[in-house]
Amino acid sequence: MYIKLKNKSLSKRVSEFLEKNNIKYFILLDEEDIKYAILYIPNDFENEKFKEIENLAEIIKINSTYKFVSREFKKSDTIIDINGYLIGGDNFMFMAGPCSVENKKMLSNIAKEVKKGGAVVLRGGAYKPRTSPYDFQGLGEIALKYLREVADENNMLVVTEAMDVENLDLICTYSDIIQIGTRNMQNFSLLKKLGKINKPILLKRGLSATINEFLLSAEYIIAHGNREVILCERGIRTFETMTRNTIDINAIAMIKELSHLPIIIDASHGTGKRSLVEPVTLAGIFAGANGAMVEVHENPDCALSDGPQSLDFKLFDKLAKNIKKSLVFREELK
Amino acid sequence: MYIKLKNKSLSKRVSEFLEKNNIKYFILLDEEDIKYAILYIPNDFENEKFKEIENLAEIIKINSTYKFVSREFKKSDTIIDINGYLIGGDNFMFMAGPCSVENKKMLSNIAKEVKKGGAVVLRGGAYKPRTSPYDFQGLGEIALKYLREVADENNMLVVTEAMDVENLDLICTYSDIIQIGTRNMQNFSLLKKLGKINKPILLKRGLSATINEFLLSAEYIIAHGNREVILCERGIRTFETMTRNTIDINAIAMIKELSHLPIIIDASHGTGKRSLVEPVTLAGIFAGANGAMVEVHENPDCALSDGPQSLDFKLFDKLAKNIKKSLVFREELK
Amino acid sequence: MYIKLKNKSLSKRVSEFLEKNNIKYFILLDEEDIKYAILYIPNDFENEKFKEIENLAEIIKINSTYKFVSREFKKSDTIIDINGYLIGGDNFMFMAGPCSVENKKMLSNIAKEVKKGGAVVLRGGAYKPRTSPYDFQGLGEIALKYLREVADENNMLVVTEAMDVENLDLICTYSDIIQIGTRNMQNFSLLKKLGKINKPILLKRGLSATINEFLLSAEYIIAHGNREVILCERGIRTFETMTRNTIDINAIAMIKELSHLPIIIDASHGTGKRSLVEPVTLAGIFAGANGAMVEVHENPDCALSDGPQSLDFKLFDKLAKNIKKSLVFREELK
Amino acid sequence: MYIKLKNKSLSKRVSEFLEKNNIKYFILLDEEDIKYAILYIPNDFENEKFKEIENLAEIIKINSTYKFVSREFKKSDTIIDINGYLIGGDNFMFMAGPCSVENKKMLSNIAKEVKKGGAVVLRGGAYKPRTSPYDFQGLGEIALKYLREVADENNMLVVTEAMDVENLDLICTYSDIIQIGTRNMQNFSLLKKLGKINKPILLKRGLSATINEFLLSAEYIIAHGNREVILCERGIRTFETMTRNTIDINAIAMIKELSHLPIIIDASHGTGKRSLVEPVTLAGIFAGANGAMVEVHENPDCALSDGPQSLDFKLFDKLAKNIKKSLVFREELK
Repeated sequence: MYIKLKNKSLSKRVSEFLEKNNIKYFILLDEEDIKYAILYIPNDFENEKFKEIENLAEIIKINSTYKFVSREFKKSDTIIDINGYLIGGDNFMFMAGPCSVENKKMLSNIAKEVKKGGAVVLRGGAYKPRTSPYDFQGLGEIALKYLREVADENNMLVVTEAMDVENLDLICTYSDIIQIGTRNMQNFSLLKKLGKINKPILLKRGLSATINEFLLSAEYIIAHGNREVILCERGIRTFETMTRNTIDINAIAMIKELSHLPIIIDASHGTGKRSLVEPVTLAGIFAGANGAMVEVHENPDCALSDGPQSLDFKLFDKLAKNIKKSLVFREELK
Repeated sequence: MYIKLKNKSLSKRVSEFLEKNNIKYFILLDEEDIKYAILYIPNDFENEKFKEIENLAEIIKINSTYKFVSREFKKSDTIIDINGYLIGGDNFMFMAGPCSVENKKMLSNIAKEVKKGGAVVLRGGAYKPRTSPYDFQGLGEIALKYLREVADENNMLVVTEAMDVENLDLICTYSDIIQIGTRNMQNFSLLKKLGKINKPILLKRGLSATINEFLLSAEYIIAHGNREVILCERGIRTFETMTRNTIDINAIAMIKELSHLPIIIDASHGTGKRSLVEPVTLAGIFAGANGAMVEVHENPDCALSDGPQSLDFKLFDKLAKNIKKSLVFREELK
Repeated sequence: MYIKLKNKSLSKRVSEFLEKNNIKYFILLDEEDIKYAILYIPNDFENEKFKEIENLAEIIKINSTYKFVSREFKKSDTIIDINGYLIGGDNFMFMAGPCSVENKKMLSNIAKEVKKGGAVVLRGGAYKPRTSPYDFQGLGEIALKYLREVADENNMLVVTEAMDVENLDLICTYSDIIQIGTRNMQNFSLLKKLGKINKPILLKRGLSATINEFLLSAEYIIAHGNREVILCERGIRTFETMTRNTIDINAIAMIKELSHLPIIIDASHGTGKRSLVEPVTLAGIFAGANGAMVEVHENPDCALSDGPQSLDFKLFDKLAKNIKKSLVFREELK
Repeated sequence: MYIKLKNKSLSKRVSEFLEKNNIKYFILLDEEDIKYAILYIPNDFENEKFKEIENLAEIIKINSTYKFVSREFKKSDTIIDINGYLIGGDNFMFMAGPCSVENKKMLSNIAKEVKKGGAVVLRGGAYKPRTSPYDFQGLGEIALKYLREVADENNMLVVTEAMDVENLDLICTYSDIIQIGTRNMQNFSLLKKLGKINKPILLKRGLSATINEFLLSAEYIIAHGNREVILCERGIRTFETMTRNTIDINAIAMIKELSHLPIIIDASHGTGKRSLVEPVTLAGIFAGANGAMVEVHENPDCALSDGPQSLDFKLFDKLAKNIKKSLVFREELK
C-alpha cells in the first residue's frame, strides 16, 4: 500500500498524520509524483482514519505479488547514489576484482588495472561461502582492511559479501555495498536485518530461484526499510554442465519490465569460463543490465578460488574497452 | 583423516597424545573398530609426531570428497539416540504434526492423533521461512512453548526449525531435534554453529542441491563437532510443475550407499499434494529411508500454511497403519 | 467427447447411427457403463443430429486437457491382454533383458534367467537411438529375429523399440509390444501412426516432458485409434548428475490418479546405477507401478551399451525374488 | 578422421585413391588448407593402404566427441550460400514470419513487412508439432505453396519445418531451408535422412539437450553427408515458468568456440513474450549469433498459434532497425 500526494509538493500534514499514528513509511519521488510507501501499520489502527488525509492524498493498493519492488508502485527507474557514483536508469556501474582477496599486493595491482578500465567498484571476497568445509574460506577481517585501503587509494567503492547477521556490522564498517550471495538469497533472517541498515545491498539471485522469488527477496529488504537494492543475475542451475551455470538473459529483460530496481550481470559466475565472460557481459548490457561484475586476477591459473572464470589483465582490458563502446552504442538504440 | 586403533579397546595413550598436541577429535565405534575422527590439527603440529603412536594406531586418509559422512570413514550405519528414541540402522523414526503451530488446542489434538499412529516426534513450525514478507511468519516463541508442553504431555520429542544463529539458542531450549530448512542448507555460518551444539540436526536437502552438496553440508556440521545429523529428502526443483517438488527417490538409495547417516523422507513437501503423501512415503521406505515426516492438520482446508499437502486425520490414520506394515515387511526383504 | 449408453447393454442403434454419420469411435466397458469414445466427427455433421439417440445415450464432454487417457473419461483401470499376459489393475508385468541384443546365445542365456525370475516380457534393443553417430547402433533385423525366436522358446513376449515410421512395420512383425523411446515421445508423426496399429505401445516419458505432456502423447495414440498404451517412467533430466536421470516417483502416483492407463517403472535408465535398481524398482511398486523393466546382462562390464546400469544374474535373482514378495505384500496394504 | 593435403591445391590422386577404395568423403577449404572429411570407410579397407598417399596428404584423427562440427576439424567459420544469401562468418541472416501460415493474404502482408525490415528468409509453419492432438496442426501442403509463392514474389527464401521422413521430400520441393524442430533434435532416423539431402538444415536445440548433444545431432547430419547445418538456440527448459523457455545465452558464445557452424537465436520461442524479443535478440547478436528468427503477425492477438510471443508490425519495425544498427556496431567491437 502506498499514499500518493494529490499535490506535487511534500505535505507536512501527511507526514505528521503517519507519525502520530505510528505508521512506518518512506517517501520517494516517482516521475512527478510524491509517494509514501507504507511499511507498517499498527494493529489497532483503523483504516477509517485515513479519511483525515483524503483531500491531500490517495491511498493505493499494489496488486502485484511483490509490492515496493514493482513498476506498479514506482514507474521510474530507481537510481542509487553511492558516494557520488550512480547506478540505475542510464547509469552503468562496473564492478571488478579478484574472487578472493589473497594479499594486499595482488589486490592493489588488480585494483589499479580495473580502475583504468572503468571499474568504480572493487570486488573481493573476505569471507567465502564454500561448498566444502575443507576449502579455503577467505582471509576474513584482514581482507576487509585491504579492500578498504586499496579502494581508498584508487578512489573506488568496495563491494564484498556478508555471510550472516553476525558479521554484517563488520562488513558494513569496511564495505560500501553489501553483497548477499546466491545461497543466502532466501536467508530471510538476514534479509530482514538488511532492511535495517543504510548501505546499498547487492542481492544475487539464488541458484534455483524463480524471478518471482528473486523479487520477493528484494521485497523483504525494502519492506523492512532499506530501499537501495541492486539485483544481480549470476546464472541459474540447469541440466547443462558445460558451463558452470546458465545465465538467464531473459530474466534481465523481464526484471527491467517488472521492477524499477537496477540489475547487473555477473558473467564470471554465470558462465564459469573466462572466454565467455566478454560475449555474455555484452549480451547482458543489450538485454538491459545496469551494471556488470567480473572476476579479474593477475595470474588466474594460480588463483586460490575461481581461477577458470577469472579474466587476466589482457582479457579484462579488451572487455573494459568493449563495455565502454557498448554503452555509447546502447544509447543510440533507444 | 582418522585414526584407527590397532587394538579393539580404547587407548588412553592415543587420547592423551591428541590432547597434548591440541588436536580436536571425536571417538566412535565402527563395527569392531575404534576410530578417532580428526577434526582439527594445529598449524604448527608436525606430521612426523604421529610416529609416537604408530604401534597403537593407524593414520588413515579419507579419499571421498566428503569425509566423516562417508561410508569410507564409517562402514556401519549411524544410530542416533534421542532421549531413548532411536533413528538409523533398522530403527525407523516417524515425525508428524502441523506445518505451523496455530494454537495450543490444535497442536494438542494433532499430537494425540499422530502419537496414536506411531509418530514419536511432533513437528510444527514456530518460525516459518516464507517466500513473501507479507505471508504468515509463525507465532514465534509461544509456539515453541506449546510444542514443548504438548510433546511432554504425549511423551513425544519435538522437532522445529531454526532459521538463524540468533534464534538457535532459543530453539535448543525447547526442541529435541533442530531442523534446518531447505533454504538454509548452504547457510555455512549456521552450519558451523550447528557443529558446536549437542542436539541432533535434521538437515533438509536444498531445492537445487546435488547429492554431493547435500553431503558436504552435513560434513560442515560434523567437521565442526556434531556427529548427530539426520538427512531429509524433501524434493528438488525440476521443470515439473504439477507437483510442488520432485522427490528424488534415487537420492535416498544413493545416500544409503555413500553415507552412514540416517535419511528420512518428507513426502508432504516433496509432493505438495495430500493424496500423494502415502504412496510416496511408502516408496521412500522401500528405497531405504530411516524415517518419515508428514504434515497433519485437523482441518487442512483451513490451515494457515501448506493446507493442500497436509493429511487429515483419516488419511493420516491409513498412512500410519501402512507404514507399520511396511516396516515389518521391509525386514523380510533383506 | 464420449457417449455413455443409458442402458447397460450394447446398443446396435447407437453404433449404426455413428457409422451412418461416418463418426469414428471405439467402445469400452467402464465399471458398469458402456462408453463410445468419439475419435472423429466429419466437419459437415451437425450436433443437432445427436438428438436422434438422446433417449439411448448421453453425450458427455471431457473437461481435462487430455481426454481419453483421463480418469474423467474412464474410471476403472485399463487392463491390457497381450497374448494372455495381463497388465493393468492388479496385474503386474515384469520385463527384462539386455540393453542391446548382441548375439543369440547371450540373449538366450539372459532370457532363461529372467523367465525363471518371473519376467514374462523379453526386452532387447535391435535399433538403438544413440547420441553420437559413431556409437553402436544395434544389430538391426537379425536382432529382431533372435528376440522372436528366443522369446518363443521361452514362452515370453517381446518388447523392442521402433525408431521411426519406416521400421515400424518390421518391428510389428517381430515384437508383441512396441516401445517408443524417450527421444520420440513427442515425435507426433510417429505417434499418429501408432494409433493405427493393433499392438500395445510402451511409451517412455521424454527426458524433459511434464506429466501433462506425457499424457498428451498417450492421448495422440488413443485419439488415432489405439487404446493399448502402457506408460513408462524412466527418469527425467534434472541438475543432479550423480545418477543418470532422476526417477520421478511422484509422477507414478500422480498418473495413477489422473489416468486409467498402466504405468511401469524402468529403474535401469532411471538411475543408471546397478546398485540402485532394486531399491528404486521396489519404491516404484509401492508408489503404484503396474510393471517394471530392467536391464540384465551376463557380464555387464562387457556389455556393448549401458553396462553400468545392467544387473548381473545374481542381482537380478535377488530383485526378482523381492519383486514377488513385494507384490504379495502390496495387496495387503489396500 | 580427415585428410589434409600437404600441397594447397586439389589433388586428383587423393580423390582417385579414395574413390577406388570406396571411401566416402567431402572436400572443404579451411583457411589455407584443403581437407577431405572421411565419412565412411569400408570394413575391408586396411589402414596400411593410406601409405599410398602419405607424401601427398596427412591423415588426422579428430579428438573431440563431435568430429566434423568441431573447430578442431575446421578452424574457419562455415559460410553457407543459399541462393545467393549467405550465413556464417560475418554474414547475418534474418528470418521472420508468422508462427503458422493461416492464409495467403496474411502471409503476403507479413512477408512484405519483414522484407522491408531486412529479413531475407520467410518462416511459417505448414505442419505444426503440437503437444495436444486436439490443437491446430497446420494447413499442410497448401501452406507450403503459399510460402513458396509469397517468398518468390518478395525475392525471399523459405524456411519451414519437416516433421518426419515421409513429408521431407514434399518440404524439400517448396522450402529452401529445412527446419527441424526441438522435439525432433534427437530423431536419429530423421537426422540420417537429412544427411542425404542437399538443402541446408536449420536444427533447433532440444528443450533439454545439452550443448554436447546438440552438436552431436548436427554431427549426425554431417556424418551422413550434408555439411550445411545452421544451429538454432531457442531456449531450454528450466524451473523458471515466467518465461516460456530460458534462452541459454552462454550456449551461443560457447558454440561459437566449439564449432564452425553458424548459430542463430530464436527469441520468440526462447522467451514466449513479445516484449522480450527485442532485448533478447540483441543480446544474442552480441553473444555472437549469426542470425535471428522471429515470429511476426499482423494481429498477434488473433494468431492461431503463439500469439503472445509474436511481434506486431510496429514492434517488428523497431527490432529490425535495431538489429541493423547492432550489426554495424558489432563490427566495431572486434
